[in-house]
Amino acid sequence: MSELSTFKSAYMEIVSFLRSALDLFEMDAIAEFVRILLDAHSKGNKVLVVGVGRSGLVAKAFAMRLVHLGFRAYVLGETITPSVQRGDVVIAVSGSGTTTVTVTAADAAKKVGATVVAITSYKDSPLAKIADLVVFVPGRTKTARIDDYFARQILGIHEPLAPLGTLFEITTMVFFDSIVAELMRRLGKSEEDLKKVHANIEVFS
Amino acid sequence: MSELSTFKSAYMEIVSFLRSALDLFEMDAIAEFVRILLDAHSKGNKVLVVGVGRSGLVAKAFAMRLVHLGFRAYVLGETITPSVQRGDVVIAVSGSGTTTVTVTAADAAKKVGATVVAITSYKDSPLAKIADLVVFVPGRTKTARIDDYFARQILGIHEPLAPLGTLFEITTMVFFDSIVAELMRRLGKSEEDLKKVHANIEVFS
Amino acid sequence: MSELSTFKSAYMEIVSFLRSALDLFEMDAIAEFVRILLDAHSKGNKVLVVGVGRSGLVAKAFAMRLVHLGFRAYVLGETITPSVQRGDVVIAVSGSGTTTVTVTAADAAKKVGATVVAITSYKDSPLAKIADLVVFVPGRTKTARIDDYFARQILGIHEPLAPLGTLFEITTMVFFDSIVAELMRRLGKSEEDLKKVHANIEVFS
Amino acid sequence: MSELSTFKSAYMEIVSFLRSALDLFEMDAIAEFVRILLDAHSKGNKVLVVGVGRSGLVAKAFAMRLVHLGFRAYVLGETITPSVQRGDVVIAVSGSGTTTVTVTAADAAKKVGATVVAITSYKDSPLAKIADLVVFVPGRTKTARIDDYFARQILGIHEPLAPLGTLFEITTMVFFDSIVAELMRRLGKSEEDLKKVHANIEVFS
Repeated sequence: MSELSTFKSAYMEIVSFLRSALDLFEMDAIAEFVRILLDAHSKGNKVLVVGVGRSGLVAKAFAMRLVHLGFRAYVLGETITPSVQRGDVVIAVSGSGTTTVTVTAADAAKKVGATVVAITSYKDSPLAKIADLVVFVPGRTKTARIDDYFARQILGIHEPLAPLGTLFEITTMVFFDSIVAELMRRLGKSEEDLKKVHANIEVFS
Repeated sequence: MSELSTFKSAYMEIVSFLRSALDLFEMDAIAEFVRILLDAHSKGNKVLVVGVGRSGLVAKAFAMRLVHLGFRAYVLGETITPSVQRGDVVIAVSGSGTTTVTVTAADAAKKVGATVVAITSYKDSPLAKIADLVVFVPGRTKTARIDDYFARQILGIHEPLAPLGTLFEITTMVFFDSIVAELMRRLGKSEEDLKKVHANIEVFS
Repeated sequence: MSELSTFKSAYMEIVSFLRSALDLFEMDAIAEFVRILLDAHSKGNKVLVVGVGRSGLVAKAFAMRLVHLGFRAYVLGETITPSVQRGDVVIAVSGSGTTTVTVTAADAAKKVGATVVAITSYKDSPLAKIADLVVFVPGRTKTARIDDYFARQILGIHEPLAPLGTLFEITTMVFFDSIVAELMRRLGKSEEDLKKVHANIEVFS
Repeated sequence: MSELSTFKSAYMEIVSFLRSALDLFEMDAIAEFVRILLDAHSKGNKVLVVGVGRSGLVAKAFAMRLVHLGFRAYVLGETITPSVQRGDVVIAVSGSGTTTVTVTAADAAKKVGATVVAITSYKDSPLAKIADLVVFVPGRTKTARIDDYFARQILGIHEPLAPLGTLFEITTMVFFDSIVAELMRRLGKSEEDLKKVHANIEVFS
């Protein structure tokens, strides 16, 4: 057996999963997700991403891109988190759909009239039930009985390790970056965007 | 043309890139990377991940898993960042290999005798030249002339948007999670690991 | 009226409050706090600080100093948060003593046998009731009825603004830095510490 | 000698320093700082705070309050950092005025026409020379020869510990909170502000 056999097989397993996930996506929900985002963009409404742990990291990577595209995007729990109003969009990322912080935040956002989008593997989870729109992303296969992320950190409880435990986050990252590509086309970005970058560089040089 | 045609083609492009990346990896360097990590694990030496922006998020996701595997892992720039000593490992993630903060940190780590591993698309970059080991991960295709991450944020300069600009980070994330799978096998983790988790849950219930 | 009259009067009010706070501290509890910290230091047990918002920032500033003093200190919610075991110390900072995340984390830590220290203005709060030791720090005068920090961010609910709303955090910061001075004396730090710093500088030059 | 003698004397030393600092402030510069902030508020320009380590924590605490007051405030290095334009304000906090990240960011901001305010103990430092306005805050007494914050973390180099090494950050925190009080008066905030908070609570209940 080759020294890196597990590395290679895990890598291939992840790539295969990603490929098969495309068939599992629900295109109507994704189209609605894009519409909600474009609507927030055109009206100047805020987009707040919510997630903890590795889901939070993937959510942040998406939020960075939204800012680059001209969205008023924010990340819950960072220093600068604005209050949410009617018309704002809250994107809540949780594989299990049960993470306490994420569900509580989604609930508060719903109560003030924000549009809540759940990104989750569980369409009947507490998070999904709160959400106005559920975008199914496969990958989370097991969940622990304790859903409070911070209590879990203290207790040393985490999802199964790679490759199985990690498929949701990776699939969500590829999903989000593909959404960014779609948004770029709809917003007519790219060349124009790059030109502005080069202009800035000239200013600086 | 279907409403989500760009979404779908971007998604497929990313998956295809990931598949082809496996052939571009240099297995000798990856095997050495695994050896360096296992050596740090067995000796109780620290592993510090370094990266900014989206590379930093991917580095953090890896560091989380290293902690779950029993490593003494840390993230540069967080509140708790220990000093680095001889024998410690610094994993510096930068697609371009020119990011100022990352290169400066790698340089400081090298001077105190730490083992520096560069994760980069550019094997002749400043970061690669400092590193003891260069692990090539494809995906970064263009770089701006300003390499200071914070100056770039202020100037609004960013890498090209998805899907092209994002391939390095996604490939690095899949790469890291596959490394985690390899480390799990070598360290004999998984079932034993899960049992401990369940034991903790009983304590809590 | 001078242009900066409110600035000056607020500044003086804060300084006066800080001075009077010294008489309100309970020295027995503070002495016990120092003993718990020194015990963790000598046994190599972990110290985890917990807090959100401005309380979290003050807790992080303390954790940085603990690391400089040789403690195994961590911050809940950062990328690298180790699990807590019996013998570890959890320092939970919450002016009201009701912040959901902080109380939940303290509760989980208590269940696994860690020593929980509450830093709070309310000695009969939920946090105080969980804690093994309550260190009273004056300054929090009002609390909102919603204690979930993240829900409050979404709803735009915050404590009263300066100067009244901020006295707890400032007093806690001065309190913590004075604890650091006490720890330095007990641990025989300072000159020796600075010498090591200078040695490192020579290595780098 | 009482058990907590060092704690008490350090605490008193910090309070005395804070009191005497008020006489060292340069009120003209502070009045100009308030004018710059109010101007940004009225025009809807952004305010970006910059700082690393404990200075960064104090800067974040100020940024939180600015958001509560209705400012478009941001923190450099967080996920969401907008680009800076002419008319925006960059508040750079560095006791020594030499911290590499902070100086580089201030320099980039200056080049695109932002107003740069330095909060520092050294009025002839590199940061002060870049700044449009220097606000002197006493407290930093020594600086190491290496000014790159991240390299220093790796090398284990830090400012002198409490109480001396910490006076700049504490004084800056009290200074900032007093600025918030001044801004509240000028903006006519407080009662109106609290009413809005209570309104939100009703919505939620």
